[in-house]
Amino acid sequence: MIDQYRPTAAIHATPRELADWIGGQLLDAESAPERLDGMAVLSEAGPTDISFAANEKALGEARESKAGMLILSAKLDLPGRPRIIVQEVWAAVAVVLAKLYPQPVAPAGIHPTAVVDPSARIDQAASVGPYCVIGPNCVVAEGAILGPHCILDHDCVVGKGTRLSARVTCMGPVRIGERCILHPGTVLGADGFKFELVGGRPLKIPQVGMVVIEDDVELGANTCVDRPFLNETRIGRATKIDNLVQIAHNVRIGQGCMMAAQVGIAGSTQVGDGCLLGGNAGLRDNIKVGNRAIIGANSGVHRDVKDGEAVVGSPVMPFREFWRMTAIQERLPELMKRLKVVEQKVNKE
Amino acid sequence: MIDQYRPTAAIHATPRELADWIGGQLLDAESAPERLDGMAVLSEAGPTDISFAANEKALGEARESKAGMLILSAKLDLPGRPRIIVQEVWAAVAVVLAKLYPQPVAPAGIHPTAVVDPSARIDQAASVGPYCVIGPNCVVAEGAILGPHCILDHDCVVGKGTRLSARVTCMGPVRIGERCILHPGTVLGADGFKFELVGGRPLKIPQVGMVVIEDDVELGANTCVDRPFLNETRIGRATKIDNLVQIAHNVRIGQGCMMAAQVGIAGSTQVGDGCLLGGNAGLRDNIKVGNRAIIGANSGVHRDVKDGEAVVGSPVMPFREFWRMTAIQERLPELMKRLKVVEQKVNKE
Amino acid sequence: MIDQYRPTAAIHATPRELADWIGGQLLDAESAPERLDGMAVLSEAGPTDISFAANEKALGEARESKAGMLILSAKLDLPGRPRIIVQEVWAAVAVVLAKLYPQPVAPAGIHPTAVVDPSARIDQAASVGPYCVIGPNCVVAEGAILGPHCILDHDCVVGKGTRLSARVTCMGPVRIGERCILHPGTVLGADGFKFELVGGRPLKIPQVGMVVIEDDVELGANTCVDRPFLNETRIGRATKIDNLVQIAHNVRIGQGCMMAAQVGIAGSTQVGDGCLLGGNAGLRDNIKVGNRAIIGANSGVHRDVKDGEAVVGSPVMPFREFWRMTAIQERLPELMKRLKVVEQKVNKE
Repeated sequence: MIDQYRPTAAIHATPRELADWIGGQLLDAESAPERLDGMAVLSEAGPTDISFAANEKALGEARESKAGMLILSAKLDLPGRPRIIVQEVWAAVAVVLAKLYPQPVAPAGIHPTAVVDPSARIDQAASVGPYCVIGPNCVVAEGAILGPHCILDHDCVVGKGTRLSARVTCMGPVRIGERCILHPGTVLGADGFKFELVGGRPLKIPQVGMVVIEDDVELGANTCVDRPFLNETRIGRATKIDNLVQIAHNVRIGQGCMMAAQVGIAGSTQVGDGCLLGGNAGLRDNIKVGNRAIIGANSGVHRDVKDGEAVVGSPVMPFREFWRMTAIQERLPELMKRLKVVEQKVNKE
Repeated sequence: MIDQYRPTAAIHATPRELADWIGGQLLDAESAPERLDGMAVLSEAGPTDISFAANEKALGEARESKAGMLILSAKLDLPGRPRIIVQEVWAAVAVVLAKLYPQPVAPAGIHPTAVVDPSARIDQAASVGPYCVIGPNCVVAEGAILGPHCILDHDCVVGKGTRLSARVTCMGPVRIGERCILHPGTVLGADGFKFELVGGRPLKIPQVGMVVIEDDVELGANTCVDRPFLNETRIGRATKIDNLVQIAHNVRIGQGCMMAAQVGIAGSTQVGDGCLLGGNAGLRDNIKVGNRAIIGANSGVHRDVKDGEAVVGSPVMPFREFWRMTAIQERLPELMKRLKVVEQKVNKE
Repeated sequence: MIDQYRPTAAIHATPRELADWIGGQLLDAESAPERLDGMAVLSEAGPTDISFAANEKALGEARESKAGMLILSAKLDLPGRPRIIVQEVWAAVAVVLAKLYPQPVAPAGIHPTAVVDPSARIDQAASVGPYCVIGPNCVVAEGAILGPHCILDHDCVVGKGTRLSARVTCMGPVRIGERCILHPGTVLGADGFKFELVGGRPLKIPQVGMVVIEDDVELGANTCVDRPFLNETRIGRATKIDNLVQIAHNVRIGQGCMMAAQVGIAGSTQVGDGCLLGGNAGLRDNIKVGNRAIIGANSGVHRDVKDGEAVVGSPVMPFREFWRMTAIQERLPELMKRLKVVEQKVNKE
């Protein structure tokens, strides 16, 4: 029903202009097209398209590609092809995409339909979209963007250049740093799930702490970061979190972590800097994960994880042990039979 | 506090009218009530209720049921009871439910509170609800319904007869086909989770591709379908997806698949036609699942899956092997003891 | 970038006032500060702060704490320290938090931006926030609070004193009892995922039943409770459910259960009273879980669970068996080697 999609570039570039954008070295330009019309993956690029290879495997595909211009590194070069050599291929690709396919700019100012409490301070260079609701004592800094339907309950601070794309809800107090991106449906500051059994019945403990999101964090669609009992739930600088992730009350995440979709981290657990968490990994409450740890997809983490440790499984174990274990696991029925044979022989003697 | 609920039928039917609705054969009608008041499950149906049996087990319950009228198939019949025999019991049930309990009709037109960009094209026979926000270059086709609080960011197309029930958010470009149903909280087109390590730090790669939802697709509440880097993330015709599902950037799903709640599919993975995915199943990135594959609940799929293959577990294995393996797994402590006994005997000799 | 957060108390209290609030016995008050400024966890409390110890481990920390006032029980006492002895420490803490850090009060009345159908009945002492949309035949009872952007589709009842914090969506019919709390992004009453294969293609079965939420229930952010085919999906009194949980169509949950984040319960499954479900646990469709059952985190429940049974794993087994099994699982490669040695010895003889 719907044909294969290709985005349309807002502007076009000559090979020379392209090389200038990304500070690269233009080579074998004589066989390049005069004008480059867009960027495409190697297998789909045509003679007026830019494409790129950032690793060995892609280089093989690049050889076969019809792309009119390639972005490559000196290490992975294709002499003879029109190309631009750069230090960091992905950094160059990011620049080209931003130039060719610029995102719509949100106009500064407060949309007339937004409901803003008189005590809120909205910077003149911020953008507040249709039907936003901004409550008492909120602050929206310079260059911050609130897309349509965002809610800042009370005592929420949105830092400079941060973008709440649409329908983000913050139940105060919440502090969001600078240059963050929050995708639609994100909920910050809902009450932590803290009940204590009193007389055999669950008693709700008021959650009066704060959610803190440091600078350069990205939070995916429909992800939740809960408000703690006292103190903070904190996501460290430059940590990137995917969709549908649960960060419970009083969790502390370090800097520069990456967490795939549907991860869940239970109450008061701490995660260090530079950790990688695979999709759907679950971390129990009150444990500590060190720096640069790697946790495989679908894992159930029931214990502390050390600095640099790489674990997987439910319960988790080191990756190598996991793969050795699961290889034998499938042979359990065979193992059982062989044991029986040995038992019979031994018992007969 | 709240009594057992029974929906109230909007209209009533005689047995003859009922048989006409569903094109079935009315039998033993002389003992049927004159008027049928509603539909109920077998165990709760009374003498003026319609019920049905679509399989062997239900037929047993039907025998005991007080239902005044049964919808049955020729294969699973109950001679003597007032009944209507049809070819497809479930198809008949769907017709009866739609007749007895019609859903409220959304009025055509744009609610005065909707904020619609002048460049958007809304068909006169479309319905746009309160507080919808529709941005530049969007298209809403004939008979499409946008419930309250839907957001079409920019360059979003909603096909004929498609219903965004409430609070659906589309970050453009997004194309949705005809007769689709999107439940509340669905997010289409949030940026794919694509970061590349440059200088040891995650660099965000702009996501400029498109989300494509083909005809007759259903997407559950709070489900996310991400926008890719280039190209498309695509859900094939008549595929049905439950709540809280994550479909990552550049994923391609075939036609007529069914995916239960909390499934997660990582970047660039491809799923064929007619696949069934159980709840909470996770698929890693860059793998291929063939046509008519079955993936059990809670599975972690780490490898390609062939046409017609049925797998379960984490990591996945064929169903039969999984159940044989897990049966022995529980006996591992016993197996260990028996091995020790054999070792001692052997070593003593 | 952002300093450690401490909430600011709305009021201050003398030790005597504090003891009166919680009906406790003030002891060794002569060394207490004249005025208490706030509550803090033991490790962060200063000389004008209140803290508390509710268990043995906390008592050890309390000894080292600089807190100016402690809330303790007679069983876990610290003679010599200024303290208040109460029967239930957590109950006292909840009272103190509510006094010191009161939540903003929502004003009674309907915000002028709310769109309310003339047939809806909103109590004068209810609060309806900005941009709420309330459809035909809805009822909002005395003291109920609808925060910003809530949607009641049609035929939704919200009981006395219940709070929909923000952006909660109910697709009718839905009945919510008294004193419930629903966090942002919750979706009640989206269509159950019920398709029947007719002629090899999935046919949607209309979902015309009701969602019933009994009194004193709490539902977390972005949690979904689906509408059933006929009858009800029901959450029992005082059950507490965390974020991102999926409750499918026709599920029945008993009273006083606690379910951690990302739990998923498939269609028509029944859960008894007082059950505890760990994070990300998945329950298949059409099973029964008895009263007071415990289901561990990340479990895949494929069978009925008896009253009081405690299970974990995927597939589930009793906790003790699970831990014994997993301990040996990691030794599978060793076990395989030992079996080979025994086989060789036996075969040589």
